Amino acid sequence: MSFKAPVKDLLFDIEHLANLAAVAQLPGFEDAGLDTAQAVLEECAKFTQDAVAPLNVPGDTNPSSFKDGVVTATPGFKEAFAQFAQGGWQGLQHDVNYGGQGLPKTIGAACQEMLHSANLSFALCPMLTDGAIEALLMAGSDELKATYLEKLISGQWTGTMNLTEPQAGSDLSLVRSRAEPLPDGTYKVFGTKIFITWGEHDMAENIVHLVLARVQGAPEGIKGISLFIVPKFLVNADGSLGERNDVHCVSIEHKMGIKASPTAVLQFGDNGGAIGYLVGEENRGLEYMFIMMNAARYAVGVQGVAVSERAYQQAVAYARERVQSRPVDGSVKGSAPIIHHPDVRRMLMTMRALTEGTRATAITAAAAYDAAHRHPDTQARQHNQAFYEFLVPLVKGYSTEISQEVTSLGVQVHGGMGFIEETGAAQHYRDCRILAIYEGTTAIQANDLVGRKTGRDGGAVAKAIAAQIEQTEAALQAAGDEPAQAAARSLAKARQAYLEVVDFIVANSRENPNAAYAGSVPYLMLAGNLVAGWQLGRAMLAAKELLAKGEGDADFLRAKITTAHFYAEHILPRTGALRDAIVEGAHSVTELPLDAF
Amino acid sequence: MSFKAPVKDLLFDIEHLANLAAVAQLPGFEDAGLDTAQAVLEECAKFTQDAVAPLNVPGDTNPSSFKDGVVTATPGFKEAFAQFAQGGWQGLQHDVNYGGQGLPKTIGAACQEMLHSANLSFALCPMLTDGAIEALLMAGSDELKATYLEKLISGQWTGTMNLTEPQAGSDLSLVRSRAEPLPDGTYKVFGTKIFITWGEHDMAENIVHLVLARVQGAPEGIKGISLFIVPKFLVNADGSLGERNDVHCVSIEHKMGIKASPTAVLQFGDNGGAIGYLVGEENRGLEYMFIMMNAARYAVGVQGVAVSERAYQQAVAYARERVQSRPVDGSVKGSAPIIHHPDVRRMLMTMRALTEGTRATAITAAAAYDAAHRHPDTQARQHNQAFYEFLVPLVKGYSTEISQEVTSLGVQVHGGMGFIEETGAAQHYRDCRILAIYEGTTAIQANDLVGRKTGRDGGAVAKAIAAQIEQTEAALQAAGDEPAQAAARSLAKARQAYLEVVDFIVANSRENPNAAYAGSVPYLMLAGNLVAGWQLGRAMLAAKELLAKGEGDADFLRAKITTAHFYAEHILPRTGALRDAIVEGAHSVTELPLDAF
Repeated sequence: MSFKAPVKDLLFDIEHLANLAAVAQLPGFEDAGLDTAQAVLEECAKFTQDAVAPLNVPGDTNPSSFKDGVVTATPGFKEAFAQFAQGGWQGLQHDVNYGGQGLPKTIGAACQEMLHSANLSFALCPMLTDGAIEALLMAGSDELKATYLEKLISGQWTGTMNLTEPQAGSDLSLVRSRAEPLPDGTYKVFGTKIFITWGEHDMAENIVHLVLARVQGAPEGIKGISLFIVPKFLVNADGSLGERNDVHCVSIEHKMGIKASPTAVLQFGDNGGAIGYLVGEENRGLEYMFIMMNAARYAVGVQGVAVSERAYQQAVAYARERVQSRPVDGSVKGSAPIIHHPDVRRMLMTMRALTEGTRATAITAAAAYDAAHRHPDTQARQHNQAFYEFLVPLVKGYSTEISQEVTSLGVQVHGGMGFIEETGAAQHYRDCRILAIYEGTTAIQANDLVGRKTGRDGGAVAKAIAAQIEQTEAALQAAGDEPAQAAARSLAKARQAYLEVVDFIVANSRENPNAAYAGSVPYLMLAGNLVAGWQLGRAMLAAKELLAKGEGDADFLRAKITTAHFYAEHILPRTGALRDAIVEGAHSVTELPLDAF
Repeated sequence: MSFKAPVKDLLFDIEHLANLAAVAQLPGFEDAGLDTAQAVLEECAKFTQDAVAPLNVPGDTNPSSFKDGVVTATPGFKEAFAQFAQGGWQGLQHDVNYGGQGLPKTIGAACQEMLHSANLSFALCPMLTDGAIEALLMAGSDELKATYLEKLISGQWTGTMNLTEPQAGSDLSLVRSRAEPLPDGTYKVFGTKIFITWGEHDMAENIVHLVLARVQGAPEGIKGISLFIVPKFLVNADGSLGERNDVHCVSIEHKMGIKASPTAVLQFGDNGGAIGYLVGEENRGLEYMFIMMNAARYAVGVQGVAVSERAYQQAVAYARERVQSRPVDGSVKGSAPIIHHPDVRRMLMTMRALTEGTRATAITAAAAYDAAHRHPDTQARQHNQAFYEFLVPLVKGYSTEISQEVTSLGVQVHGGMGFIEETGAAQHYRDCRILAIYEGTTAIQANDLVGRKTGRDGGAVAKAIAAQIEQTEAALQAAGDEPAQAAARSLAKARQAYLEVVDFIVANSRENPNAAYAGSVPYLMLAGNLVAGWQLGRAMLAAKELLAKGEGDADFLRAKITTAHFYAEHILPRTGALRDAIVEGAHSVTELPLDAF
């Protein structure tokens, strides 16, 4: 099944929701206007459609394989990755001083989405490399930067994040890997890391592992964890590759999906100790990792949008082709393509609305990120940072939970054929199931939303967003026609539900944490739903304005209005049930005694 | 992961929701009292736990295989099936005149659930055999009955249902397989059938295919379809096996789940014609098939409950064992088993409530089936038949859609381990995905609910159910304590939403079919949710009464009340969003022009 990158929709969001014109006024982004965005997105679309998307099914049927410590990627991946590096795609958003292209996240996120749509497994490798690059930029010494950054940004080397250990998953305080300081300032690293994405492979010359470990004598818990670089091959002074380091892949996992992406168990130090280089200061590893992880969490949210888009396209193609039964309204005599049946339409519209809604949130968040980093005004930076940080758990949590619904509907549209692997619909359903788990489960995102993002400031940011939504409602109300009125009504109801929940969370997050945290994931789903509906409300307004001015592609704009209308009528009402569960149902969540389960 | 059959919960539902005492007063069921139920369920629990459940994972890792027309089941399946036959389990609900045990469906359904929990793939073989048996009992000639019934009921032979063809899935009017009458009254059958569950295998001596085909010269469409028996081996006059018939398996499918169950492509008549025997009259095949299919649909609904139960048990076991992070309420110092975390509790409670709710609906429906078939009073039979027929699309549609949510939560509880195949949680998620598709997709069930079950009688049965629910609310209201009050309030709200939807469906099902059918699946989900919540409300009342009398297992009864309370607060509120989508959102479902997708 071929993939067509949704360039038009992405550009619409970039221009009208993320307000690229404002982003292009930020220092350093002067060249990142709409023409640039369009050129980059079109080039990216070509590359992902032609070079990466065709490898998605082969990656599932012929996954990465492991033998004697060596991992071999699916045939074709190595060549595609070389093209990826060649095209400069790894450096898209990275520092121009190290060979990057220095584009804003607003544009970069759109390219990420396409790459993930084309091939989730493939795109994970650059995604993890991005994490390594950011960690180095943030906390690496000049020497480390000089040694690693250019090679990572060029795509010559790749990066990994080594957090998880068998006993330390969500709870990183349990990390046991250890590092012994050596007289020359380096460390010997020992331990076992699991679930290391692209932790070993043959697509690049070297792999740069970012590793959490405890320096001998460090405090217990999260305050004693440091961050190290442990390269697969040590790097000579002249930048050439030296000796093989003492880190080895001992197996890869047999997973339900994203099978082309090798998930490695890495053993550090079995032959005397892996040479590691401290990143930043000792015992501050988790802090660095969390900043990095915010980027990775955002990126996983984009994966959710991406796989939803791919599943949607595949379902539409099948629904146009598969002929079965007469439409109930008699519009076609005899059997018709199933896209004529109302329930198939309902499924496709649900898929479409959820995809466009989560995309709109992600692109909007990206613009806030750019302003948070580049805006000349401190207050504007702080304001945007707070907005971005609030949105990250929603982008990660809501988009990925929603991708399960979307890919499941994709299977359903295919009927019995959806369950047959050769059709390809099942792959999206299997692939996407990891998204709500890795880089922090939905519950971890929701804890972040409840604690750091809502409880800590007494709901200030949460309520500021509600105030902005109210303005969008007013504009929709003023727009007059029925879809806009319906959107305004639905948004108002959902916002009310949201505000009641924010109050409940703020009131309980310290005094009665069980009640607040029992509602944490429903709160995340409510907030994610509302914010996506809000962005689609803004999209509806922008589309109406363009139509009124006779600008843009009228068919596209009318479709955007219809999709936003559908979201308002079919998706936003879910917030009511979530409100009830959170505000009225906290007690029954933890009422059952443990031994009664 | 071992399986423990939920005998206590099944017996509770059988006794207090299905009112087995009344079932045991029906003619022919005099021996089917509570003692019998308990003895049968306990025996069945032993068999399914010990002989069938351990084959579930091996069936996934080492599926049925195909070579040169021969299908070999997963090692161990043949022996387990022999034990199944030996134990008389195939005949549990069937006619004593043909060697069955003649037990009511109320007991039989509970045993079915255990078998499906133990192993969905394995249990499909007897499930399809049940269909063949029922078709023969309903429409077969005395000769056909004499030839086939005892062997099928004893489990010596198995049965299949051959409906689907490549171009004819949901739309059986497109069936092209054909039958040529022969002078001796038999037929030669030709055609290709796909998706034939257990269509070929090595677990039984003979396979009895029930096949839809058109007799030469029959009318077009659904009125020209007849039903045939086509045995794999012809049967001699003395009952011994004769020649191999001209039906051959040409391949089996590569599926996402239920891999141990071979899904065959069967070729009929490539070597001159497969000998077939007409069941009933010519051109009435679809009518017979539909009666049969109601049984199969109910059984698939039970599969949904069953896989939910299995996933729940596995998630609870993991949540008790996996240690990670400190509980937010400080109840445990240091890291604790994750079952202490509120969001894990929320997930487990959701899984539990959905499983118990869908089970309660299924068992209640079984009792209606029994009364519909055996009650001495015509009106009572009709009343129960209408009730049962209304419930079948809910049991099939709601339980199976819900099983996707439950198995997905099961994966989530496992975190990253859930995505690793060796853990086993992923298998349930993959296995269950076919349930909402085969034997009629959820949309097909919903069409049935909208058209035949609601539109046709102007919503009379639907509203009669609402009136019964109102009585349960009143009883809960009278019971006084807070969980009962909460359940009464939630039920009342959900019932109101349901009634508005029923009115909307009735008003539109003819005049504006697109509007009615755009809401068909949401209506099914709403009705299924409400009926399950109602049954749990009844369960709460029964549990309170028993506790008040000091009867029964107090811990179990208190847990039942808590689970019903959770369902009322967390699941029933979803009905509001469904109401809004159906009643207010019909237009936006079909608004987008076809070429805009």
